[in-house]
Amino acid sequence: MELLRDFHARGWVSGTGGGICGPADGGGLLLAPTGVHKERVQTDEFFTVDPSDGHVVRSPANDALRPSECNSIFCLTHRRRDAWSVVHSHALGAVLAGDLAADAGRDHLVIRDLEMLKGLPGVGNQDVHLVPVIRNTPREPELVEQLTAVFDDPRFKDSYAVLVRDHGVYIWGKDVWEAKRHTEVYHFLFEATVARRDRHSEDSR
Amino acid sequence: MELLRDFHARGWVSGTGGGICGPADGGGLLLAPTGVHKERVQTDEFFTVDPSDGHVVRSPANDALRPSECNSIFCLTHRRRDAWSVVHSHALGAVLAGDLAADAGRDHLVIRDLEMLKGLPGVGNQDVHLVPVIRNTPREPELVEQLTAVFDDPRFKDSYAVLVRDHGVYIWGKDVWEAKRHTEVYHFLFEATVARRDRHSEDSR
Amino acid sequence: MELLRDFHARGWVSGTGGGICGPADGGGLLLAPTGVHKERVQTDEFFTVDPSDGHVVRSPANDALRPSECNSIFCLTHRRRDAWSVVHSHALGAVLAGDLAADAGRDHLVIRDLEMLKGLPGVGNQDVHLVPVIRNTPREPELVEQLTAVFDDPRFKDSYAVLVRDHGVYIWGKDVWEAKRHTEVYHFLFEATVARRDRHSEDSR
Amino acid sequence: MELLRDFHARGWVSGTGGGICGPADGGGLLLAPTGVHKERVQTDEFFTVDPSDGHVVRSPANDALRPSECNSIFCLTHRRRDAWSVVHSHALGAVLAGDLAADAGRDHLVIRDLEMLKGLPGVGNQDVHLVPVIRNTPREPELVEQLTAVFDDPRFKDSYAVLVRDHGVYIWGKDVWEAKRHTEVYHFLFEATVARRDRHSEDSR
Repeated sequence: MELLRDFHARGWVSGTGGGICGPADGGGLLLAPTGVHKERVQTDEFFTVDPSDGHVVRSPANDALRPSECNSIFCLTHRRRDAWSVVHSHALGAVLAGDLAADAGRDHLVIRDLEMLKGLPGVGNQDVHLVPVIRNTPREPELVEQLTAVFDDPRFKDSYAVLVRDHGVYIWGKDVWEAKRHTEVYHFLFEATVARRDRHSEDSR
Repeated sequence: MELLRDFHARGWVSGTGGGICGPADGGGLLLAPTGVHKERVQTDEFFTVDPSDGHVVRSPANDALRPSECNSIFCLTHRRRDAWSVVHSHALGAVLAGDLAADAGRDHLVIRDLEMLKGLPGVGNQDVHLVPVIRNTPREPELVEQLTAVFDDPRFKDSYAVLVRDHGVYIWGKDVWEAKRHTEVYHFLFEATVARRDRHSEDSR
Repeated sequence: MELLRDFHARGWVSGTGGGICGPADGGGLLLAPTGVHKERVQTDEFFTVDPSDGHVVRSPANDALRPSECNSIFCLTHRRRDAWSVVHSHALGAVLAGDLAADAGRDHLVIRDLEMLKGLPGVGNQDVHLVPVIRNTPREPELVEQLTAVFDDPRFKDSYAVLVRDHGVYIWGKDVWEAKRHTEVYHFLFEATVARRDRHSEDSR
Repeated sequence: MELLRDFHARGWVSGTGGGICGPADGGGLLLAPTGVHKERVQTDEFFTVDPSDGHVVRSPANDALRPSECNSIFCLTHRRRDAWSVVHSHALGAVLAGDLAADAGRDHLVIRDLEMLKGLPGVGNQDVHLVPVIRNTPREPELVEQLTAVFDDPRFKDSYAVLVRDHGVYIWGKDVWEAKRHTEVYHFLFEATVARRDRHSEDSR
């Protein structure tokens, strides 16, 4: 719980969007409420949901709060990737990285030639790492169908992230500390790949 | 009051320019003094003005202080958009966003294909959102005429912001927390739109 | 004194370079020591110099300290512009702004069409503001000759800054608070002018 | 020891990668553990190694910790350059600086026309400063062979840094404070050189 709040303090979920979930003491998944300024979330405002189907096990005392729209996505990621913590970021670098894939007519981003890839379990700095990119939809739960296809796709079995075009990225880990590390790693990888592509497109003209 | 000071602490009105207003306890509008380093404004240095006409209801004890030049703009925005809090930012991203509109020979900025649009009430991520851009004038109160025209223009009824070329942006909300959220959302939208235009203009060459 | 240390805390003179001076209680000019990590300067480590000729009036107890190399420049600026506080910044934006002038074959940077110009006394947002750019020399005191010429040049009478190519910028004010405001204003103006030039040069290709 | 922890606090080794070493009280070299979130390293979690051959003189009580992979590189740098403190950074600016050298088909980065060069002992602002760039390898100890060749190369005798392509940079100094200063200086030099190259390549098209 304290770790989750530290997460917020560090600004990975700043702004009006973004979200995070983590393991609850009793085996459930803690989930932040929606529509709340993320840096002001109180300890007693989190929901606890059953990760097998997303139903709310424990609600905060404040009746006005609703669980984050990310609930169905977080639970799907938990079941398919054994993730106990998922970060949803709206970083500009993630949006621009999604643009790169679309500009190239691909359903994924290609990341290569970066030492930082070693920050992901089972990935080496000589690997060509593919991150899937899905289309944005009016509401987040509607992303579930595309996400299911991505989790079934063997090309993406080593990825700990899914980019959503025009939107941001979901990044996960087996616990909150691994999710934190993957979040730092992927944001660097996105920024480096975008910066290099900008320079490369200039050179090749 | 405390919320207003938190605003300053977070740096949205840093630098020598920028400003903010918010609701006073007695129904008036709190207004920061002009010519003061914004991060050093004290609680007892705010003016309270009557939002119907901008006349000062309560002045700070320090006679050397004058109300912000934004007064007439803040009051107009209050009357026409029912805003109880207006932020005036001099961010570079807002200046560059205004340039985009002028480069295209338009009186507005076009924002589209960004999830962050959902951070604005009544706006969806599939909408094409127009933010009006007005010309800068030697002094801020002279912007009022252009602002009146903008508020009358049905194309801009969904916008919570007005860009001022070479200058910055006014962003509002029904209270200080909504104004804070809109301020974060629009600064992201401006930065993303500028970054994408840069990349697109390269691609199209 | 306290204000000076607040200056350091805010990072305007971070890094290994940069410097600052301000008025001492007895009519002299306070000067930071050279070769010291700026964020670690102690209250009792400042020199006091006579601004008419730069000779040291009071030295810190620590004999190992020497007065900043900026001494002769700060004193010249004091005498010619009545400045009681001068900031010397090594910001990247200042270096790139100096490049702009050199690329254009000019001895000055042209700043225009920016509201932020109003942050400088006597300058309006419709003015074309010229900031002189001088060549870098192996040691800072050797800049004095070029600086004297700049102070004699009527084109630059409204400028509160002198850019040094490949190096940074000197910015001054009548006291530390004005110098702080001018420092913020000029850094914004440099960044905005560089960002616009980059975008413009792309458009014109 | 306190200085080392201050280093971490300032973010030079943030993220999942990066590392640092510094002198231990008894003549050894302090080394951070690997696989630990750098901002959470505790005083009693550092290893002490013998810099002549890298063998561990004192281990932390926690058996789960292993010494940083940088050990062999830090010790080599100590022996060949008399460095008592080495910083290993994964900054994006260092990666892009390495790209510049590779794009130009060179084994080094050329830095010139920057006052900040004076922040390096024995280097003047009119000098042309060469920083060697080596190829990345799957694991850090394998860099040792290339590093040995670099230390033997007279072209690079004035450099206090070695760039590793796609990876980052090693920067050293005779103590932690000099290493800190060199780290600030080189990061500025990399960023300025990359920014100028981008602008220059546009101008020359």
